[in-house]
Amino acid sequence: MKLREAGEFGLIERIKAWVATSDARLVVGIDDDCAALKANREDRLALLTADTFVEGVHFRLDYFSYFHLGWRVTAANFSDIAAMGGLPEAILVALAMPADQNVEDIEELYRGMRALADEHGVLIAGGDISKSPDRLLISLTVLGAVEASRCLRRSTARPGDAVFVTGEVGGSHAGFKLLSAGTRAWGDAYAEVVNKHLTPQPRIREARFLGEHFQITSMIDISDGVASEINHIARLSRVGATIHEVRLPVASEVTAVAEHFGESATEYALFGGEDFELLFTVPGHEGEDIAERLHHHFDLPCTCIGEILAPEHGITLIRRDSTEVPLAAEGYDHFRA
Amino acid sequence: MKLREAGEFGLIERIKAWVATSDARLVVGIDDDCAALKANREDRLALLTADTFVEGVHFRLDYFSYFHLGWRVTAANFSDIAAMGGLPEAILVALAMPADQNVEDIEELYRGMRALADEHGVLIAGGDISKSPDRLLISLTVLGAVEASRCLRRSTARPGDAVFVTGEVGGSHAGFKLLSAGTRAWGDAYAEVVNKHLTPQPRIREARFLGEHFQITSMIDISDGVASEINHIARLSRVGATIHEVRLPVASEVTAVAEHFGESATEYALFGGEDFELLFTVPGHEGEDIAERLHHHFDLPCTCIGEILAPEHGITLIRRDSTEVPLAAEGYDHFRA
Repeated sequence: MKLREAGEFGLIERIKAWVATSDARLVVGIDDDCAALKANREDRLALLTADTFVEGVHFRLDYFSYFHLGWRVTAANFSDIAAMGGLPEAILVALAMPADQNVEDIEELYRGMRALADEHGVLIAGGDISKSPDRLLISLTVLGAVEASRCLRRSTARPGDAVFVTGEVGGSHAGFKLLSAGTRAWGDAYAEVVNKHLTPQPRIREARFLGEHFQITSMIDISDGVASEINHIARLSRVGATIHEVRLPVASEVTAVAEHFGESATEYALFGGEDFELLFTVPGHEGEDIAERLHHHFDLPCTCIGEILAPEHGITLIRRDSTEVPLAAEGYDHFRA
Repeated sequence: MKLREAGEFGLIERIKAWVATSDARLVVGIDDDCAALKANREDRLALLTADTFVEGVHFRLDYFSYFHLGWRVTAANFSDIAAMGGLPEAILVALAMPADQNVEDIEELYRGMRALADEHGVLIAGGDISKSPDRLLISLTVLGAVEASRCLRRSTARPGDAVFVTGEVGGSHAGFKLLSAGTRAWGDAYAEVVNKHLTPQPRIREARFLGEHFQITSMIDISDGVASEINHIARLSRVGATIHEVRLPVASEVTAVAEHFGESATEYALFGGEDFELLFTVPGHEGEDIAERLHHHFDLPCTCIGEILAPEHGITLIRRDSTEVPLAAEGYDHFRA
């Protein structure tokens, strides 16, 4: 069987079987944003997460600077730690590079990683460098920790919960469209969506705040679009869900970019990747003042976009015209894309 | 500046500057086999190490099976944990693969990782998979732990110490020569050197035993040959050292393979990579019964191959004819090789 036949998630299911264990030390395995294992202090779990970025697949150096690249791969990993309710502690950097790689560029890469790491008090603790015949690869591992009682999972949403997202969605994809079209003529109004793609902010502090003050039932970070993430939550929690198109927090600049390219801003939000916002669920009665308190503390919007329902409902989108349609996980599949 | 100009170690020196920190949590940074940082339980350090294997650079699939590949990348990481005196706890596997990758082969890869991981009670805790346009890349991260008082460094050898190696050296390179020549006609007598290359045994238990029973002053694993490792120890400890050619523990099969290829078995031992044995130092008086006790407990040779000297002495090899020559670190440099 070829990987393109199995698909990314088909392969993950197989890997889960290959590494299956009943060892109680592994509290959360492959199914979640991070692996969580019982750490040395009894009330804390160690969090480990890894992300690999391959030149020509995950980034193009014609519009990504090495600084942005370093920032972004770090943000992607920190976002996974955030989505567990944890704090990142240490980074390992594994680089594979062609022999004609510019050293100055690698320095910029480290500057980008360090800029974000310093902002969150995280150490770059080590790593590995090796040769690649043709293209740059970056594989980052982040170790973090979370109090065992505060660990936020994907598999624990319950019917009746409200579904929230932090910030706005679709911005990263809009920025990607502008950058890959090569135009710089959009002006300052669009700096925000471009920055959302180049220097996304992982919601570490926001996730900690949410976990401290609200009864969060499940959480995931948005790396492949709202549709993909709500499907992960629903599948792993064995529940249904519905998302309201009209409630999706989409910036007016995103709508303008989508219109310019003859595309749909809703699709950017649902299927565009790498916003690195949080999607989470809370019991319905808990949701009332979340938006206000998150706005007050972080100057960040937080929006109720849907509800968790019984599993028989399936996963649906209620469109602007009130029609309800199935919402498939059409996030990015590396091997089918 | 191009990377081929800076060289691997030149780049590492730069990276050390880029990530420099005075944070006391980072007990051992880039200079050692693992990054060691203060873990949650106060008497233990978390150990993190990463290794990337790139198809066509670190392995060739014409004579490496995927099982061997999985075993070997795991062994390389475990060997780094062993060399710190620690125990591996969890593995993260990051894979980048072309879309036409065979799923069955990836299963074999996991079987190989798991075979060695199970032997040492280590969890495969998670990871990341992504697309590579053309070739397979494996980046493994291992988290381990060691009692803070037992952490074995590279930088703490002292003049007067004896230099030991576990097992035999040069075998992996001899196995590599046989495998890459494609001959299977060497017979069972050479299975051992072939296996030394395909399924090396990281010396985790042996390192723990040594750390428990002897005053080990420094330790490193042999991944780039004895010459490279003694240079690491001497440079980081600011000492000199001498190695006696006649004492190098080289199996007779290794000598036969080297002779067949018109090469030197001593060079296999000094400059051949990936034996994954341990090179360590102890105060001279401590060395007397190490060999006997290691043989008794593990049925493994352990040989005194040299001495740590004052820094003025430099790093030398005493040849069979008693002449003394400088011993440079001619281990593998990814970007210059």
